[in-house]
Amino acid sequence: MSAVLCAADDALALPRLSQARTPFTCQIEAMDENGQLRTLAIPVERALTVYVDKRELITLMTLGARPEWLVLGYLRNQGLISSAAQLDSITVDWEVGAAAVKTRSGVEAIEERTAQRVVTTGCGQGSVFGGLMDQVQGLRLAESARISQAQIHSLVETIRLSESTYKSAGSVHACALFSLSTAQPEMLLFIEDVGRHNAVDTIAGWSWLNSQSVAGPLALYTTGRLTSEMVIKAAQMGVPFVISRSGITQMGHQVAQTVGLCAIGRALNRRYLCFSHPQRLLQGG
Amino acid sequence: MSAVLCAADDALALPRLSQARTPFTCQIEAMDENGQLRTLAIPVERALTVYVDKRELITLMTLGARPEWLVLGYLRNQGLISSAAQLDSITVDWEVGAAAVKTRSGVEAIEERTAQRVVTTGCGQGSVFGGLMDQVQGLRLAESARISQAQIHSLVETIRLSESTYKSAGSVHACALFSLSTAQPEMLLFIEDVGRHNAVDTIAGWSWLNSQSVAGPLALYTTGRLTSEMVIKAAQMGVPFVISRSGITQMGHQVAQTVGLCAIGRALNRRYLCFSHPQRLLQGG
Repeated sequence: MSAVLCAADDALALPRLSQARTPFTCQIEAMDENGQLRTLAIPVERALTVYVDKRELITLMTLGARPEWLVLGYLRNQGLISSAAQLDSITVDWEVGAAAVKTRSGVEAIEERTAQRVVTTGCGQGSVFGGLMDQVQGLRLAESARISQAQIHSLVETIRLSESTYKSAGSVHACALFSLSTAQPEMLLFIEDVGRHNAVDTIAGWSWLNSQSVAGPLALYTTGRLTSEMVIKAAQMGVPFVISRSGITQMGHQVAQTVGLCAIGRALNRRYLCFSHPQRLLQGG
Repeated sequence: MSAVLCAADDALALPRLSQARTPFTCQIEAMDENGQLRTLAIPVERALTVYVDKRELITLMTLGARPEWLVLGYLRNQGLISSAAQLDSITVDWEVGAAAVKTRSGVEAIEERTAQRVVTTGCGQGSVFGGLMDQVQGLRLAESARISQAQIHSLVETIRLSESTYKSAGSVHACALFSLSTAQPEMLLFIEDVGRHNAVDTIAGWSWLNSQSVAGPLALYTTGRLTSEMVIKAAQMGVPFVISRSGITQMGHQVAQTVGLCAIGRALNRRYLCFSHPQRLLQGG
């Protein structure tokens, strides 16, 4: 089988996804400090229960922006599948709040690997986090990737100008993925969710489906804080730059330093703080 | 056995807790947009693995403010124990990042109940959330509790003036519990954590230990958004008022309406929005 055929096979092997859509906001009445009733929009928060081959796995509370990518990214980031091609289809039905995942040939040892989240008797670190850390052990991001100040500013400005559920209803986090292969970073995907981990999982799902068309180094933007889990998920996607409006925690910082990730926080207007790997910054660029 | 003796027995039956302490911040060097190095404080984020009778349950990522109360509140809010008296002791050792929980006579069906988090084959809602929702089914908060505008303002002002890790290092959420039995609400506990659910779990743990000394209606303050989980946890503690700097999600709103909880958001300076049960507000008070 030739390399070309292999590539074609890979493309054909991507899972079929439903296109479930649902409103992101609803309206409620609230009373202000003067006793006046005001109508305002708030974000939707829905329960989405994930079934893998008819077996219940977990329920995610989500805004529901792109639930199929969310489920794919969740399975990826939990290390339950190692390739999107392992899945035949993901079908989301909002009427019953369910995502039915059909695999091509099952998930190896899924019972043990999901039970492990809560019931291993290992020592030291628990299984959820332990599992995530295992996946970044030995992971080192490509050393050559660089970002210029102009690119950081452009990226932050693009986010500022994006139409968003946050602007209309508040109470959601946003994540966005940018390609840095051009002077003006191109925003590949912008996702909001009630949970910031859902937003980054959704981006992880999308990037798996589009890995062949995405070129150059990538940057992940998040409105949320750079905790360990956020940095680990970026590193798992091979993203060397994470940019946040907020700050960083000690473990987020530690993981970023270990894997070679340039973590930038407090990014607002033309200001920022680079918490790790400043050698990736092109000064004056 | 008289009622007085019962009360004394209850008091004696509280679990023994270690007093593990750890720094909340550490210092790192960051490079600003002018290429200048700056030393700044960031919050610590530690892995705390919870063992119940030597069986690993879960790992919580935490600031580590009051880990014993956090573990107690976590077990309570997950519905794994129904009384603090079921526990003999909680011993936290930061050197190994472990919390050893010793029960008096085991946790009934712990294997099934923790496995259920990820592996039930029920329909509709998943087990984590389903479990939480089950606990608020039929729960209705006492109708008589009221809060005055002056109390809301005083409470928000108390938070504003509190010394905090947030002020020195950012990137943490705060929760506080107030007693409303006096004109000036009394702050009973102020807790910060890298996860807002940890902060509210810590308050849940503390309030179990101090249930006999806490009088009058309570208010929970949180810097975080009022998602379903946050509102459910407040309702489980019997707290009829939740006040937040942020907004509310649809499911948070729905749960608040159902259980009779007065949810107040966007509380800053002298402004706020009451999202549910405005009849609990004393206008002009």
